[in-house]
Amino acid sequence: MGAKAPGGSGKAAVVLVSGGLDSATLLAIARAEGRVCHALTFDYGQRHRVELQAARRVAARLGAAEHRIVPLDLTWMGGSALTDQAIPVPASGAAPGSAIPATYVPARNTIFLSIALGWAEVLGARDIYIGANAVDYSGYPDCRPAFIEAFERLANLATRAGVEGAGFRIQAPLVSLSKAEIIRTGVGLGVDYAQTLSCYDPDAEGRACGRCDACRLRAEGFAVAGIADPTPYQPA
Amino acid sequence: MGAKAPGGSGKAAVVLVSGGLDSATLLAIARAEGRVCHALTFDYGQRHRVELQAARRVAARLGAAEHRIVPLDLTWMGGSALTDQAIPVPASGAAPGSAIPATYVPARNTIFLSIALGWAEVLGARDIYIGANAVDYSGYPDCRPAFIEAFERLANLATRAGVEGAGFRIQAPLVSLSKAEIIRTGVGLGVDYAQTLSCYDPDAEGRACGRCDACRLRAEGFAVAGIADPTPYQPA
Repeated sequence: MGAKAPGGSGKAAVVLVSGGLDSATLLAIARAEGRVCHALTFDYGQRHRVELQAARRVAARLGAAEHRIVPLDLTWMGGSALTDQAIPVPASGAAPGSAIPATYVPARNTIFLSIALGWAEVLGARDIYIGANAVDYSGYPDCRPAFIEAFERLANLATRAGVEGAGFRIQAPLVSLSKAEIIRTGVGLGVDYAQTLSCYDPDAEGRACGRCDACRLRAEGFAVAGIADPTPYQPA
Repeated sequence: MGAKAPGGSGKAAVVLVSGGLDSATLLAIARAEGRVCHALTFDYGQRHRVELQAARRVAARLGAAEHRIVPLDLTWMGGSALTDQAIPVPASGAAPGSAIPATYVPARNTIFLSIALGWAEVLGARDIYIGANAVDYSGYPDCRPAFIEAFERLANLATRAGVEGAGFRIQAPLVSLSKAEIIRTGVGLGVDYAQTLSCYDPDAEGRACGRCDACRLRAEGFAVAGIADPTPYQPA
């Protein structure tokens, strides 16, 4: 199954998988599009370590050909509630006076896509899937279509494959879907969302807090979609 | 020394320092421009581990305010003679039929700049210095002015600081200088190039091989500049 195709394989793709609702849907979409999926997860010192277990379940159940969990320590950098123990996870929304919440990790999607790009080039893959979403996006700047387009442009200037002609495509099929639309899409593709974890502050068993931004958006998504929420929540 | 200036400090800068001739000159230029320099070095599984010792010497001698050496394992990715033990370092130049040599690390500068961007945002720095050079550049696509410009554009779409108004600048002052011009600039700023290491295949004592692309370009640079080459070479 020649994943290493120097000229660029039309089937191979790198898929960024966090283990959350969005990236599970993303992987299901990539598989439905006939991709041979090389799933990539970062262990970046996130508080929510049980997220990595969810990523393993998602990659295995949704048919990734390969799954890499790559250590990428961003805790030394500080600056985010997700990686800096000194900053509390806010109960809801952005801090007063700021459009962007404390859970924003500086340059996270840029860093993740850059490493995915390097791996894609080595694999001979030309498509990189990312579950960025600009609708229910909590105000993160690196989830907008303009960011995705700028990264694709950069990718084709930055790499041997770009210079030598075979262009990279950054696939962000969720970017303009609502959470309810994402959930309906995933259910249609057979995704079992009970296996996924979106919460910023889960307990040791991987159960969701039900209070953080990610939990709130996810629960609203199931409600709007008219689909029973299968999320395991912590006892009240 | 308020390095953490949320509104963006005009003096603070992140400087990518490898320990080679180019990045030593880069740090000297940033210091001469009055920057408070936060030096950033990646330990990315490069064969030339003594490079990290050179980076430490360079950062200390040229007055970096701070120096971080960040682990960033890229060996799992494969694909480069610099990180993959199965690929030999070529004695000279690109392989036949390819404009880009085996020492190219896929997406390396994109990955390095992305992490520098995250740190700059946390520090409140708006300037990121990189020693990319398009003249004697060995054919790496991510050393060209078009790449630098595309990354700067991306940086201002990807980040809270970009969205909220204070723009990032990617400073690549070496990009159009010849190796001889870089050396003359550095000597004028007091850089001691005996402390730097450019070689792709040094011995355990950090002495240069004298045969690889990097050694060849460096030696030619000293010759053209009319400056005695202070590089410690391995015994013949």
